[in-house]
Amino acid sequence: MTDLPNDPIERLIALLARTPGMGRRSARRAVLKMLMRPQETMLPLAEALTEAARAVRPCETCGNLDAQSPCGICRDPQRDRHLVCVVEGVADLWALERAHAHRGLYHVLGGVLSPLAGIGPEDLAVGPLLTRIAAGGVEEVIIALPATVDGTATAHYLTDRLRPAGIAVTRLAQGVPLGGALDVLDEGTLAAALRARRPA
Amino acid sequence: MTDLPNDPIERLIALLARTPGMGRRSARRAVLKMLMRPQETMLPLAEALTEAARAVRPCETCGNLDAQSPCGICRDPQRDRHLVCVVEGVADLWALERAHAHRGLYHVLGGVLSPLAGIGPEDLAVGPLLTRIAAGGVEEVIIALPATVDGTATAHYLTDRLRPAGIAVTRLAQGVPLGGALDVLDEGTLAAALRARRPA
Ligand SMILES: [Zn+2]
Ligand SMILES: [Zn+2]
Repeated sequence: MTDLPNDPIERLIALLARTPGMGRRSARRAVLKMLMRPQETMLPLAEALTEAARAVRPCETCGNLDAQSPCGICRDPQRDRHLVCVVEGVADLWALERAHAHRGLYHVLGGVLSPLAGIGPEDLAVGPLLTRIAAGGVEEVIIALPATVDGTATAHYLTDRLRPAGIAVTRLAQGVPLGGALDVLDEGTLAAALRARRPA
Repeated sequence: MTDLPNDPIERLIALLARTPGMGRRSARRAVLKMLMRPQETMLPLAEALTEAARAVRPCETCGNLDAQSPCGICRDPQRDRHLVCVVEGVADLWALERAHAHRGLYHVLGGVLSPLAGIGPEDLAVGPLLTRIAAGGVEEVIIALPATVDGTATAHYLTDRLRPAGIAVTRLAQGVPLGGALDVLDEGTLAAALRARRPA
């Protein structure tokens, strides 16, 4: 907490300005606006931050962030447990959920392989994925990684590692723009790419 | 607190999305980013919000928002107590402070007169301003209201009400763009307009 002003207003502006998407100017405006009705604006936000920091954790099964573990998706009896969609991160999982594109479960990899950045399989949730598949019940793994060089290489790597399990391994159809991140795509594109998935 | 989701993540996104300048998408991204390091990001922000909501109040003298009343400006022995700058709101006061444009004190009016919106002198801090001037010691009132129709009418009204006090009443030089809000001006323009102030 070094480098933060002691004055309560300046301190709040400095912390809010660190929020992704907020600059110093918008933080100042937001704080001034909130100070007009602090009980109705600042205290509920403070409570929600505290509660989220306390309650939210990664799901022990899939890596999704939720207030319970296993997460709400893993616990949902309506979801198709034969189908597991592998995503790079929670942002992509949330994007697929907003698109109502996937009725199965997920597996959050926590990144993609990157020789340049020194990220190998042991840095990602590859082992837990193989263990999960080995436990049985999964019939298809859908690889929904970004269409980047590293994402594509990671998809190939996972396909090789999953081959011995003898299950279907598919990936998103072209439709995901080359080099594009999943979580900025519109929901229709995401849903179409998922429907038209093909063998990896 | 109606209409808010119970799920801690969804609740936090909904509350953060209400912050001026934040949309739902940026709130979602910010929450996801903060959830990666909740102790370092969410808890300090929650504490700063709680502390600001607890400590910050309007200055009893000038209407500035501060953790103490009278505020830091009103208490500052370096400020010129003969000079009082009348502003519409705290945002404008902060803008003038950032411009280092004014070495005197302030008076926050809390709005401008607006016959259409039914805002009369009794809805603004006009009475407290007159009382403050009547108490003596102030030699010049600088009216720094926005160059809108209502702002200009309010400046004329205040000039009339202050005339009996026999002190100088000035307003910002042209240089403030017509119809422009003070708190979006660059600091040089603000400082120049203040230096070139003229009798009202
Ligand atoms: Zn889960
Ligand atoms: Zn004050």
